Amino acid sequence: MTKPILEFWFEFASTYSHIAAQRIEATAKSRGVDVAWKPFLLGPLFVRQGWNDSPFNIYPAKGAYMWKDLERECAKHEVPFRKPSQFPRQTLLPARVALALESTPQLADFARRVFVANFVADADIANREVIHALLEGIGVDGAAVLTLASSTEIKERLHRRSEEAMSRGIFGAPVFFVGDEMYWGNDRLDDAVAACAKGR
Amino acid sequence: MTKPILEFWFEFASTYSHIAAQRIEATAKSRGVDVAWKPFLLGPLFVRQGWNDSPFNIYPAKGAYMWKDLERECAKHEVPFRKPSQFPRQTLLPARVALALESTPQLADFARRVFVANFVADADIANREVIHALLEGIGVDGAAVLTLASSTEIKERLHRRSEEAMSRGIFGAPVFFVGDEMYWGNDRLDDAVAACAKGR
Repeated sequence: MTKPILEFWFEFASTYSHIAAQRIEATAKSRGVDVAWKPFLLGPLFVRQGWNDSPFNIYPAKGAYMWKDLERECAKHEVPFRKPSQFPRQTLLPARVALALESTPQLADFARRVFVANFVADADIANREVIHALLEGIGVDGAAVLTLASSTEIKERLHRRSEEAMSRGIFGAPVFFVGDEMYWGNDRLDDAVAACAKGR
Repeated sequence: MTKPILEFWFEFASTYSHIAAQRIEATAKSRGVDVAWKPFLLGPLFVRQGWNDSPFNIYPAKGAYMWKDLERECAKHEVPFRKPSQFPRQTLLPARVALALESTPQLADFARRVFVANFVADADIANREVIHALLEGIGVDGAAVLTLASSTEIKERLHRRSEEAMSRGIFGAPVFFVGDEMYWGNDRLDDAVAACAKGR
């Protein structure tokens, strides 16, 4: 039986995706599991649920708790965190860039750095200069990747990615898939990796 | 330093409250922590968030995932579970009865049995006969407790409990408090117990 690949669906504005992104490679590696990083946008899914903002902003009690819980969870997992001055940030640009890098080995490194920019350095990840600097930092041609990221091909792939997220039942992030089995939230990362290691 | 009591806020219609209710005493006891069981109603809080039904019904993708996740979580924690034919059930009656038992040692046993009735036996916990039988099963005078449960005093206490839930920032169930520190969800039970055992 072939061991399945662990699909990691993440959104750059998602706070708990930040924790999962920083943890997943070490967690997966310890069980011999390979990870496929899958950038997507939560916005279109939220709009279809009737939300035009993060539910953490729409429901203030839930939002206040989330920031408190996030601090505790980041401390528990030793993931750096500083509350950003803007939430959620627009993530269309970094999502397109991540898709442009999807067939390269640099995707995971880029994604982790975008999360750190947003949730540690409080940088505006919707800004081209910020993204360009992150790309140069991982040793790729920032201008070339940004050009590819704005191509029709990438825009259409991102659209199809949102459709796939919808059709597979995704409603939040992060999400892990082991085959068709869905696991939602950083809290389920260990269970998803364990299921993957068992080959189901 | 006195070790704080772990407050366990639960709602009889809440699926993850079922898991927490079946686990909490053993988990707390293993760390020398005492538990105060706090029945409350989610309905009034949901109404103030604009919901007239469980969010698991309002948002179908989230609901479909919840039932799947619940099965996995119950299996993981060895908590019996069978999907009820009605969800959510009305919980005003069992909540009032639980409040009527709050100063007695029978509350925890009653609460666990109500959850089993709802989420294992598929019994209608809004039904007086069902609740009466559960009360007799734990060795209390069912008729007398039901009479107390319908008193003005208990109704007012339940109302004040909802107000307290709101003012303390509760937006879902189960919730654990260690002093003013809030932990939401069965996933945070171990962290809450550990914090309590440390005396904060």
